[in-house]
Amino acid sequence: MLYICGMPEQIFSYQQLVDFTNAIFQKIGCSPEHADTATKTLLSADLRGIDSHGIARLSGYVRLWEAKRVNATPQIKVIHETPSTAVVDGDSGLGLVIAPFAMKIAIEKAKQVGTGWVSVQNSNHFGIAAYHAMMALEHDMMGIAMTNASPLVAPTFSIDKMLGTNPICVAAPAGNEPAFVADLATTTAANGKLEILQRKNLQTPNGWVQDKDGNPSNDPHALKTGGALLPLGGDREHGSHKGYALGAIVDIFSALLSGANYAPWVPPFPAYVPMPAQQPGKGIGHFLGAMRIDAFRPANEFKQSMDHWIQGFRNAKTVAGEEKVLVPGDPEREYEAERMKNGIPLLEAVVADLNGLAEKFSLDLMQ
Amino acid sequence: MLYICGMPEQIFSYQQLVDFTNAIFQKIGCSPEHADTATKTLLSADLRGIDSHGIARLSGYVRLWEAKRVNATPQIKVIHETPSTAVVDGDSGLGLVIAPFAMKIAIEKAKQVGTGWVSVQNSNHFGIAAYHAMMALEHDMMGIAMTNASPLVAPTFSIDKMLGTNPICVAAPAGNEPAFVADLATTTAANGKLEILQRKNLQTPNGWVQDKDGNPSNDPHALKTGGALLPLGGDREHGSHKGYALGAIVDIFSALLSGANYAPWVPPFPAYVPMPAQQPGKGIGHFLGAMRIDAFRPANEFKQSMDHWIQGFRNAKTVAGEEKVLVPGDPEREYEAERMKNGIPLLEAVVADLNGLAEKFSLDLMQ
Repeated sequence: MLYICGMPEQIFSYQQLVDFTNAIFQKIGCSPEHADTATKTLLSADLRGIDSHGIARLSGYVRLWEAKRVNATPQIKVIHETPSTAVVDGDSGLGLVIAPFAMKIAIEKAKQVGTGWVSVQNSNHFGIAAYHAMMALEHDMMGIAMTNASPLVAPTFSIDKMLGTNPICVAAPAGNEPAFVADLATTTAANGKLEILQRKNLQTPNGWVQDKDGNPSNDPHALKTGGALLPLGGDREHGSHKGYALGAIVDIFSALLSGANYAPWVPPFPAYVPMPAQQPGKGIGHFLGAMRIDAFRPANEFKQSMDHWIQGFRNAKTVAGEEKVLVPGDPEREYEAERMKNGIPLLEAVVADLNGLAEKFSLDLMQ
Repeated sequence: MLYICGMPEQIFSYQQLVDFTNAIFQKIGCSPEHADTATKTLLSADLRGIDSHGIARLSGYVRLWEAKRVNATPQIKVIHETPSTAVVDGDSGLGLVIAPFAMKIAIEKAKQVGTGWVSVQNSNHFGIAAYHAMMALEHDMMGIAMTNASPLVAPTFSIDKMLGTNPICVAAPAGNEPAFVADLATTTAANGKLEILQRKNLQTPNGWVQDKDGNPSNDPHALKTGGALLPLGGDREHGSHKGYALGAIVDIFSALLSGANYAPWVPPFPAYVPMPAQQPGKGIGHFLGAMRIDAFRPANEFKQSMDHWIQGFRNAKTVAGEEKVLVPGDPEREYEAERMKNGIPLLEAVVADLNGLAEKFSLDLMQ
């Protein structure tokens, strides 16, 4: 038996997880093509070490489908467009499928007029932002991906939770160096990090959460007792108004431009949480962008500059006790290489959850 | 005698500062049109309460001109373009003039194809990002503005200063509510806040600066003794890798796409600081964007949603001791209304500096 953070775990090959996940998506009614896309999108999180957003959420997606909040056979369509923009209606489908659809449109528009920008309404959670932004790289484009999410975050000075963790990803191709991929929630720490501390019975550092009355807290269970995650910065003195502004920008791009729900009205991921009353829009919103490098500058010149930029950071002098200055995307790329080779560790609790799905849909157990 | 932060100050009307600044820009050789644009851009900082970026820097711009680092009569031109993008060469002019030129191109492109994106090389400091982003508002567009800047910021785990404070601004129009304007340096705190603490002989909070060896520091003079500003988040545990990634994104958009200098090679603002050796690009870089709202959704629907969004935040329950949850742009708009009416306070030291300019150029003293 192996352990992750002191918890028992099992190792599976990427292909094992692909086969299982694909089967589940087909069982709930996804077309083979949609199941394939949803599987690749979801498991890119496990490969890149973002365990909170990968196969551990598969049963959550199934429960959303059972609650009729996810449509397994959506008619995803463009409802408005200009040469460089589009709005996509996801027809309540899986964000895992809708966001790649939208990103392909952004890429096609960038081929035509230099850049493409697609705001999405009526979607659900789209997995990790990096998967979508990185689709642009093979076209010698920069990729941008954002999504709003259900309200867990209190703006500066607020007790009420008004924003999601609202991540932003920007991916830029390099030449000999690997691509630059910055994928960040606009909070000090994401929920997955709280869960690790909960398992270890440890307190959170200052600036991660507040309690139900808006007081600073170090309780990793704060969210379950009416508390909130804090915007990047933590408090006003440390710049939380900036993290709040960034989360707000993501909300505006993703939902105000598309007609999706925004702010505290974004639908929750757990199917047992009631939908917000008086929803002002449709589903969850995303924003996807692609910029053709040679719409600005020859791609080979840009990539040479990116290599030089990246090497500059890698060669920066480190503070005592640290081996190297990382470039955004380094840890996730190292995870992916290692896990593609040696397999993906899943917590026993996750394996048990997946085996519950296997039984429900008469599939072979994971083992 | 009045005081700001315990320092003696004098009050001037906006028009007094306009007349003086405009005269100085004409004295160094700017055309009347360029002087007018540079003046409006520079003084928008004083109006909005960002005193560090306004008229207090006028003598700094003049010194850059004296050092032949600023060209007062630039031939600003588009050197590459597609329907939705352009690259502008600022010919070493004032960023205060070049950035509005580039933003106008972004707006024209947005009129044609939905969005416009302009990366700028060979420029200098452009004042506050908000001035440029807000140019989009009257066209029912969202505006985006970024710039890189000389290296004062150490990435996570780095002793070396590799990035500037690299601000991001996003402006979005509302209906009955004032526009959303988020303008943020990607550091925990900007240099101007350190200067206030220096004057008061106070320590900085944790997470603002590190010393020359990369140790956490509370010394507001840390930058003068080889230390660095820290990315938003402060340290790894509080998300500084996110602030670092945001600063890096601004650098890539502003300089890698345009061919400007990037990372530690960005030219310094103080004319007495030598230029970096082996510069990989030209001048400082900016990135300006405009998105036509109705390229996504009817503008009146968007604005109604923005009003609803803004009112939601204003009505959020506040933590004890705070009057209201602010919407990004609130404090600056309140400053502008107050200062346009009652005048703009300048520190005596700034007035003395301006009077030095007056004597140099045979202008009437400020009083």
